[in-house]
Amino acid sequence: MKIFIVLAHPEERSFNAALFQTAIQTLRNAGHEVKTSDLYKMNFQPISGKENFTRLKNETFFKQQEEEVFALQANTFSSDILSEQEKVGWSDLMIWQFPLYWFSVPAILKGWIDKVFTMGKFYDNGKIFNNGFSVGKKAMLSVTTGGPEKNYVDDRYGKIDSILFPIHRGILEFLGFSVLQSEIIYAVERLSDQERETILDNWVNRLTNIEREIN
Amino acid sequence: MKIFIVLAHPEERSFNAALFQTAIQTLRNAGHEVKTSDLYKMNFQPISGKENFTRLKNETFFKQQEEEVFALQANTFSSDILSEQEKVGWSDLMIWQFPLYWFSVPAILKGWIDKVFTMGKFYDNGKIFNNGFSVGKKAMLSVTTGGPEKNYVDDRYGKIDSILFPIHRGILEFLGFSVLQSEIIYAVERLSDQERETILDNWVNRLTNIEREIN
Repeated sequence: MKIFIVLAHPEERSFNAALFQTAIQTLRNAGHEVKTSDLYKMNFQPISGKENFTRLKNETFFKQQEEEVFALQANTFSSDILSEQEKVGWSDLMIWQFPLYWFSVPAILKGWIDKVFTMGKFYDNGKIFNNGFSVGKKAMLSVTTGGPEKNYVDDRYGKIDSILFPIHRGILEFLGFSVLQSEIIYAVERLSDQERETILDNWVNRLTNIEREIN
Repeated sequence: MKIFIVLAHPEERSFNAALFQTAIQTLRNAGHEVKTSDLYKMNFQPISGKENFTRLKNETFFKQQEEEVFALQANTFSSDILSEQEKVGWSDLMIWQFPLYWFSVPAILKGWIDKVFTMGKFYDNGKIFNNGFSVGKKAMLSVTTGGPEKNYVDDRYGKIDSILFPIHRGILEFLGFSVLQSEIIYAVERLSDQERETILDNWVNRLTNIEREIN
């Protein structure tokens, strides 16, 4: 398979980075091709707006979706968007590795989403969900949390599925991706070294056999 | 009342900007004090990380929450964070005006959230929800969508309340804010001039009487 992994964490020695590096190595060892985007290391610029384009169709009134449709014909996407769109298009499976910041993705990953999944190329009128351009592709969230699992089982924080629902449904399934079960690592700051080892071993085992979840 | 309004839209002639300007004028006319942050105009930098601080407690391993707690004592927050924290702390009511991007806030607003609501100052162990530092303050989302209302009433997109749940519960209520009913303007691109006028009139009416929703 062709697998694209996106990492959004500011510390290169973090457990998120360890999960990211483990995934790369495990999937390559299993014979898959892997491409990556380490958003903090790339200094990916997350503000979505006029800078998404090298030239605007309408200089006086900015409408992002109209510019996106125009950019597909006129080849006016900024280079950072083009290279990310290429990796998404290339992949069979996309994995997002991130810490849950305020019950959602970190802003740097939100900006990547806002900029990369452009109208006309990744969705269009009637080209969403089962008719989306990414039908046949798979996606998976690999998420760490600050709080322990017990916080995410009732209505206090909300169940983890409710928290991830807008991402699963409103982004990935909207685009046509089939979403695999999320990998959730709770209370990452409180893990012992032994617990981290066990989690990484489980991650290796899951990813080594990832095709079983797909076929 | 002291009211703080945050705008996150790249086009200054957009309907979001009109709702923002209408809110400022209406609330001032009603005798309230208003402060604002127009995030695109400010070129607010949304990447949350080491740049949040003028100096780090731990230069070799970045842990954001530890740095946040340290920064409160050592006064090492970056100036863009300090000025926004001051406005949040000053306000009785905070309004976020934004277009729904991928079923959430635009990245520039997500980064504002990631950076501004720091541990130790806005939440802490046991200092969340009913014990949060912002108990007594109110918050309101004013949101525009691309899709029409019929998309947000069943499980296809998900109900609008499910989409906004992580923001309401996981950010605002987590911090202690009481959340007023959201102002939702659907299918903003498809509105006629007459419909826009009616919506702005309704917004003026709601905001003129906003104290009735609070007291």
